[in-house]
Amino acid sequence: MDQSLFTYDIVAEDPKTHARAGILHTPHGDIETPIFMPVGTKANVKGIPTETVKGLGAQIVLANTYHLAMRPGADLIDELGGLHNFMNWHGPILTDSGGFQVFSHNDAVKLTDEGVRFIATDYDGSHVFWTPEDNMAIAQKLGSDICMQLDQCPGYPATRKYVERAVELSSMWAERCYKAHTRPDQALFGIVQGGMHLDLRLRSLKHLEECGDFPGYGIGGYSVGEDHETMFETLEPLVSEHMPRQKPRYLMGVGNPTTLVRAVGMGVDMFDCVLPTRTGRMGTAFSSQGRLNFRNAKFAHDAGPIDEKCTCPVCTGGYSRALIRHMVTQKEMLGGILLSQHNIYFLLDLMRRARQAIIDGRYAEFRDEWMQSAGARDY
Amino acid sequence: MDQSLFTYDIVAEDPKTHARAGILHTPHGDIETPIFMPVGTKANVKGIPTETVKGLGAQIVLANTYHLAMRPGADLIDELGGLHNFMNWHGPILTDSGGFQVFSHNDAVKLTDEGVRFIATDYDGSHVFWTPEDNMAIAQKLGSDICMQLDQCPGYPATRKYVERAVELSSMWAERCYKAHTRPDQALFGIVQGGMHLDLRLRSLKHLEECGDFPGYGIGGYSVGEDHETMFETLEPLVSEHMPRQKPRYLMGVGNPTTLVRAVGMGVDMFDCVLPTRTGRMGTAFSSQGRLNFRNAKFAHDAGPIDEKCTCPVCTGGYSRALIRHMVTQKEMLGGILLSQHNIYFLLDLMRRARQAIIDGRYAEFRDEWMQSAGARDY
Ligand SMILES: [Zn+2]
Ligand SMILES: [Zn+2]
Repeated sequence: MDQSLFTYDIVAEDPKTHARAGILHTPHGDIETPIFMPVGTKANVKGIPTETVKGLGAQIVLANTYHLAMRPGADLIDELGGLHNFMNWHGPILTDSGGFQVFSHNDAVKLTDEGVRFIATDYDGSHVFWTPEDNMAIAQKLGSDICMQLDQCPGYPATRKYVERAVELSSMWAERCYKAHTRPDQALFGIVQGGMHLDLRLRSLKHLEECGDFPGYGIGGYSVGEDHETMFETLEPLVSEHMPRQKPRYLMGVGNPTTLVRAVGMGVDMFDCVLPTRTGRMGTAFSSQGRLNFRNAKFAHDAGPIDEKCTCPVCTGGYSRALIRHMVTQKEMLGGILLSQHNIYFLLDLMRRARQAIIDGRYAEFRDEWMQSAGARDY
Repeated sequence: MDQSLFTYDIVAEDPKTHARAGILHTPHGDIETPIFMPVGTKANVKGIPTETVKGLGAQIVLANTYHLAMRPGADLIDELGGLHNFMNWHGPILTDSGGFQVFSHNDAVKLTDEGVRFIATDYDGSHVFWTPEDNMAIAQKLGSDICMQLDQCPGYPATRKYVERAVELSSMWAERCYKAHTRPDQALFGIVQGGMHLDLRLRSLKHLEECGDFPGYGIGGYSVGEDHETMFETLEPLVSEHMPRQKPRYLMGVGNPTTLVRAVGMGVDMFDCVLPTRTGRMGTAFSSQGRLNFRNAKFAHDAGPIDEKCTCPVCTGGYSRALIRHMVTQKEMLGGILLSQHNIYFLLDLMRRARQAIIDGRYAEFRDEWMQSAGARDY
């Protein structure tokens, strides 16, 4: 697998933490890390046109392999010139493996070494059998810049034995994905599993490194129900001591501002999460004062912006807290859309400022300032 | 009532039709007529940020007095600096009277000469009694550039006697609104009622002219269930022969492209309707080929724009019919939002082109071309 189009240049390393600033090259553009990646599950970021997503500063967006394989189907997207054309997003795209969504089908999922069998209850109820090779065939038809191996993501809590088995299966599938993936303009990332067990995490990583030269690594199986400290107990040594320095590290499915700030200090480069858009649609904003719930009556008379300190198009564009609250309580979708825009910008801007702090060699100060600020209450 | 801020200049009159091009001056800017006005019922155009509404070319937007009086309330909007500030729309705003919404409460509505009593079943079920004076007090607190008198809008079919009574009541209320309205930076328009009876329409108009010097007239009580020809039978003589030339004429609640083209030829200057946004959210587009329903499977593989001939940001922005269909069928709100944008632009652009045709003295040709085009099928 030639993945020479996906070099990762480390631009700066912070002297007092493990934070790094980098540039990940992709066929659709460079990505400056650390980075938050907005999620466009079904080929769109909910309620937000692509030019607006770009205007918020997004450099790369996610799309969901499982959902797109179900509707409209990988062949259709391929026929229409691939996912960039289909989504009308011409920057870099990352597609997840779909494994997480498959396993969320719970009872209907049957696992074998060969692959995973499940019933697409959220679509037409059809019986689906997915092998790692199927998964790669779909990913290559979609043509995202970065795709992820098929993996098994155990929940929390889970027995050690169950997690161990998930690591084994994920390793086996990593190998098959690696062999099946041939598209040179698409990077395949392996995924480190292992739950809250450091030795299993390291075993998973070792398997991946033996399997081949992945241009980057996902870190899966966190943010599945454990508390933050439990996650950091194993995430910190995994990332800061064991993962290869020269490869980008992508902490999957995590989008809490404080977690991002802490994880960057441990050496994580990439994040994605539905949190900014999902909480936005529910009426909630990230802010420098912690999370704000616009169902709260205290905002009814408030002429100020969502967050005084925010420089996003919504906060600087004349929308008052009173209007946002009115739209949220009246179920006007624009309220949730504007909050989604603000929340995405908030994380993008946080990562931009983090990157600058790393380049300036003051990431420890940046992190500590955040942790002492009212914004860290969001946690 | 000094309404000198609201002069209406007729820029051109078409030689072969009754179409006119004008400029209506308002404290928040000039409006070039003929014009379509997008509807922002609850202080926002559903799903579309105000800067995008402006970018589509909207010169004036509507908001709904009844809904805003219920939530968040006129006092709150007044306290926050008025509706322009609250909505974050700094161009001209027109507020309807709320009468149409009140009467849509049907069985719960009790009419007296004094005012209207109803139960706000769509809010908290409170009992409300509205007089024309209340209505004007609310309108003046909102501070729109143009407000409408309280009127009674009979449905269709209705007995002549019922329509006659609605004309009488509306006339009486027009007089009370005219007396109660004092805000010099807000124009009050009277509303011509009379159903499908020309003599009642003329009686209504005469009452209004006797009542005072309204700076413009709404034409209410159409598009309530009658077919198009039935509407034009009375609308045409009313507008082209009887309404005063020097005042803007606003056909309320009508947004069908073909009706707009025909009505402009009869001398109508202003239109509003929820049609472009409501049908957009339901997956339907206006187009040069007639109405297109994106639930139709024929669009699944279609890489072209919504309408080849459309120059809106969506059609020129890289969104394919296939993507629009995917989002519509997958209930992704962005599909309906992009269709809403296209539909609003479609009517705005149609009226811009109509205006140019009037200025060029070729409106009859413009109208006939439209009527012979595939777009007229939309009807
Ligand atoms: Zn903001
Ligand atoms: Zn268009």
